[in-house]
Amino acid sequence: MDAETVDKPKRRSGGRAGRVAVRTAPLADNLRPVRAGMSGGQYSPLSEANVLRIHEAALDALETIGLSQAPPSGVEILTGAGALLGEDGRIRFPRALVEDMLSVAKKDVVLMGRDPVHDLDLSGTRVHYGTAGAAVHVVDIENREYRESTAQDLYDAARITHALDNVHFFQRALVARDVVDNFEMDINTLYACCGGTSKHVGTSFSDPSHVAGCMEMLHMIAGGEEAWRARPFVSNTNCFVVPPMKFAEESCITMEHCIRAGMPVLLLSAGQAGATAPAPLATAIVQAVAECLAGVVYVNAMAPGHPAVFGTWPFVSDLRTGAMSGGSGEQALLSAGCAQMHRFYGLPGGAAAGIADSKLPDMQAGWEQAISNTMAGLSGLNMVYEAVGMHASLLGFCMESLVLGDDLLGQVLRCVRGIDVTEDSVSLEAMRQVCLEGPGHYLGHPQTLSLMQTEYIYPAVADRTSPKEWAEIGKPDLIQKAIARKNRILEQSTKPLFDPATDAAIREAFNIYL
Amino acid sequence: MDAETVDKPKRRSGGRAGRVAVRTAPLADNLRPVRAGMSGGQYSPLSEANVLRIHEAALDALETIGLSQAPPSGVEILTGAGALLGEDGRIRFPRALVEDMLSVAKKDVVLMGRDPVHDLDLSGTRVHYGTAGAAVHVVDIENREYRESTAQDLYDAARITHALDNVHFFQRALVARDVVDNFEMDINTLYACCGGTSKHVGTSFSDPSHVAGCMEMLHMIAGGEEAWRARPFVSNTNCFVVPPMKFAEESCITMEHCIRAGMPVLLLSAGQAGATAPAPLATAIVQAVAECLAGVVYVNAMAPGHPAVFGTWPFVSDLRTGAMSGGSGEQALLSAGCAQMHRFYGLPGGAAAGIADSKLPDMQAGWEQAISNTMAGLSGLNMVYEAVGMHASLLGFCMESLVLGDDLLGQVLRCVRGIDVTEDSVSLEAMRQVCLEGPGHYLGHPQTLSLMQTEYIYPAVADRTSPKEWAEIGKPDLIQKAIARKNRILEQSTKPLFDPATDAAIREAFNIYL
Repeated sequence: MDAETVDKPKRRSGGRAGRVAVRTAPLADNLRPVRAGMSGGQYSPLSEANVLRIHEAALDALETIGLSQAPPSGVEILTGAGALLGEDGRIRFPRALVEDMLSVAKKDVVLMGRDPVHDLDLSGTRVHYGTAGAAVHVVDIENREYRESTAQDLYDAARITHALDNVHFFQRALVARDVVDNFEMDINTLYACCGGTSKHVGTSFSDPSHVAGCMEMLHMIAGGEEAWRARPFVSNTNCFVVPPMKFAEESCITMEHCIRAGMPVLLLSAGQAGATAPAPLATAIVQAVAECLAGVVYVNAMAPGHPAVFGTWPFVSDLRTGAMSGGSGEQALLSAGCAQMHRFYGLPGGAAAGIADSKLPDMQAGWEQAISNTMAGLSGLNMVYEAVGMHASLLGFCMESLVLGDDLLGQVLRCVRGIDVTEDSVSLEAMRQVCLEGPGHYLGHPQTLSLMQTEYIYPAVADRTSPKEWAEIGKPDLIQKAIARKNRILEQSTKPLFDPATDAAIREAFNIYL
Repeated sequence: MDAETVDKPKRRSGGRAGRVAVRTAPLADNLRPVRAGMSGGQYSPLSEANVLRIHEAALDALETIGLSQAPPSGVEILTGAGALLGEDGRIRFPRALVEDMLSVAKKDVVLMGRDPVHDLDLSGTRVHYGTAGAAVHVVDIENREYRESTAQDLYDAARITHALDNVHFFQRALVARDVVDNFEMDINTLYACCGGTSKHVGTSFSDPSHVAGCMEMLHMIAGGEEAWRARPFVSNTNCFVVPPMKFAEESCITMEHCIRAGMPVLLLSAGQAGATAPAPLATAIVQAVAECLAGVVYVNAMAPGHPAVFGTWPFVSDLRTGAMSGGSGEQALLSAGCAQMHRFYGLPGGAAAGIADSKLPDMQAGWEQAISNTMAGLSGLNMVYEAVGMHASLLGFCMESLVLGDDLLGQVLRCVRGIDVTEDSVSLEAMRQVCLEGPGHYLGHPQTLSLMQTEYIYPAVADRTSPKEWAEIGKPDLIQKAIARKNRILEQSTKPLFDPATDAAIREAFNIYL
C-alpha cells in the first residue's frame, strides 16, 4: 500500500526463491492477514465482579473526594450540569450526573486520517497501534548516545510511520527542542507531523492561546474550516488532570478551545502508581477511571457527544527508586485493566503500552515492548499509544526501534486476529486426503498454498534463516538491517505531504523550521 | 532461595541506595510477587463453541481416520480396550472409548523435583515455565557463532536453570553431541541434567532398550527403586506420534517401558502446520488434539491413571520456505489455543512457547520469546516448554539468553498473577488521605511501602536507569551483563548435585563424560 517496496526480493522464475518472491508480493488490502482495527478482547484481566467494584469505587471517589483546581470556566460548565462546588474548592460529581453523561458520550468515534484510508474506527474492541509521548532525546544508535530531539527528528519519525503498515497513527512522539518559541514549537510540531504522514495525528498545545493559530494552519492544510470540521485529522492529547484528582487549569481551557474548534480530544489521565496514583494496581485504575469520568462529564456538559477518547494512562513507578518503569509487567497489567474498563463503559479508550525501559533496541526492549503491546491488543484497547520507538521509559525515541516495532506489531496483530474456526478450518477433508490417500504431508496441498498469504504474516526486517543460511549471508545484524530500512524509507519520502501552494502559504504565514 | 546473591547491591545505610538495597533483599517465598504455579486462564483464544467444534472434529478424526503404525504391543493394548484395527492397518477409536479413557486419565498430576520445593502442581490453570528441545548448537555469543553442543553445555544449562527463580523445570534442551554412543548419550544426558539441578527433569530415550539402564542410574540417584517410584523426578518426553496420524513404533515401546518403570510421560505430538499438520491453525490444533487423545487412550488402557502430560505441540512453518518458525505469532496462537483445549479436558497440558527464530539474543528474540510466553501464561498452559534460551527455531541454545529469559519470565509471571482486586485495593482510604489531608502524592505512603516487595517484581539483569545514570555507569551492555551473571552462577555451582558416594557409584557403573 505504501511506497516502500525495496524490501521485497526480486521475482525470479521457478524454485524456492521464486515461490518466496511471489508470496512476499503486496496483497490486496482486504486479503492482508492483519490490518488496523482488528478486534481484541479475548483477554480479560479483571473478572466482571471486579470491573463493577472498580466502577463503584470510581463513582465513590468522584462523589466524596472530587477534583480540585477547575478553571472558572470549568466550574461554570460542571456546576451548570449538576456537579457540586464544595467549600474546599473541590468539585464533586453525583453518581447520577456521571451516569447521565456516560449515556450522552459518543460511543462510535472515528479518528480520521487526512487520507480516509487511514481512518480509525474506535468502536467495540478494535485495536490500533501508534506512537505518542514527549521524548526529549533521540537515540543515536550508531554512536550509542542520547541526543536532544529536533523538529527534523519529528518529521523523520512521521515519515517512517507513514510507511509502516502496522503503525496506524502518529501522535507527537518527541519534542522539537530546537524550536525555542513555544507557539512556534506547537506550529512546527503540527507541520512536521502532518507533513510526514496522512495518518491520524495527535498533538498537544503548550498554551491555550496557541490553539487559534494552530487551527489557522490546520484549516489551510484541510482546505478551509468547513473541510477541517467535516474530517478533523488531528486530535488534542489533553492532560486535563494532574493526578491525584486535580484539574490542570490551563489544559482544561485548551480543551475547551479544541472542542469549540471541532477537534477530538484525548482525555488523558497520566498518574504514576506509587507516586501520583495509588500503588495497588486496582486502585491506580480506580483513580484513572474517576479522573477520566470527570473528563467525560466536562466534555459532554460543554458539547454533548463531542468525540473524546477515554485516556486512562496510569504509569508505574519502580518503587525502589520512584522512577517510572514503563517497560514493567505491572504497566502491562494497568493498561490491559484499563482497556477492560473502556469495554465496560462502551467508550473508545486509549492507554499506553510498548514502552521500553531499556536505553537501546536490545533484547530487553524487545520483551518489554512485546509483553505490554500483546496484552493491550488482546484486551481490546482501541488506541494503543506509545506502542513503538519509546525507550528509557519515554525519555528517548529511537527510529530503528520504530522500524523494528513494525515487525513486532505485525506479529502482535496476528495474535489479536486470533484463530479462525470456520466450517473450512475444522473440516477433516484435507486431513483425510493426506492421511488416507495422499503423500502423508501437507506441503503443497491446495489448502496450504491458499492460506500462505492470507493467514500467515511475514516480517520485513526480522530474520528467519537457519544458522547455515545466516552464516552464508554474513550473519546480518538486526540493527543494521533496521538502519537500512529506515534509510530506504526516508530516501523515498522526498517532500512534505502538502500540495506546493498550501506549503508555500503555510511557510508565508508561519515560521517553519524544516 | 538459590545460591546466587552477588547480584544484589551491597546494603548501605540511609538514602536511596539503602532503600534500594533493602528492597532487593531476598523475600520469604510466600511473599514473593511471583512463583511457580501461578494461575493463568484470563485469556481465551477460542470461544466455548469453537472449543467444542475442535473437540468434535478431533473425535471424528480418531473415529474415521485413526492412526497407523502402532507396534504389535500397542495394537494389543489398544484393541484390548476397544479400539478397532482396520484392514488398512489403521487403528480407529470409537468416541465412547475416548470419553471413557478421558474419565480415567489422571487430572491432578504433580511433576516432582528431586527437591520437593521444586514440585510442579499441574492442576487447574497453574503455569510453569522451563526449558526443552534438542538443540544441536550452542550460541557462542562472544564469537557470534553456532558451535556443536556438548555434555558440558547441557550440564551448564542445568546449573544455570537451577539458579533462576523463574525457570521452573529443566527438560533436556540440547543434545550432548560429543557423546558418540547412543546409550551413553542418554545416560550422560540424565547425569548432566540431574547433576545440574534438583528441579524436575525431562528427557527422552533414543532407543527402547536404553530405558532399563537409565532407570538403573535413576534408582541410584533416588536411593533405590522404591524411593524413585515414590517421587519420580524425571519425566519422559515421548514423541509417540509422527504426525499426521501415525504412531512412532519405537517411541511407543519406550513409552510402555517408562510407564512400567513408574516414569511420568509427556505425550508429545509435534506436527508442523503446513508441513506435517494442516495449515489452518484450527485444524492443526484438531490434529494435535486427536493424536494426544490417542495417547491418552494408549496410556490409560495400559495403566489407568498413569501420570501423563497432554503434549499438543503444534509448530508453525514459514509457508514461503517450509522452514519452521517457532518465533511467529501463529505459533503463539497455536500454543495458547492448545492450552484452552487442555483446560476443556481438565488434563495437565504442555506446549511450546518462547522460541526465537532470531539467531542471537537481540530485540527480535526479545519480542519473539515474550509474545508466545505471555500468551501461553495468560491462557493457563500448565507446562510451557522451550520457554527460555531457544534460538534459530530450536536449532541453537544460548546460555546468555537463558539468563535474560529469567527476567523476561519474571515479568510474564507478574502478568499471569494479574491485578489483585481486594477490599484493600479498592479502598479509597489512601486516596482520601492523600487528596484531602496529605501531601498530594503517594510516595512514602505506608500502603506504597508495604506493596513494594510483594506486588512489584524487579529484574536481575535488565536495566531501568535514566539515560543520565546509564551514561554515568558506562552505558552497560545487556549481553555483557548476562555473560557476567552466567559466569557468577557457574562459578558458584562447583560440583554435581549428588552425594559423593552416589556420584562415585554412578561413575563406576557408567561412562560419565563430565
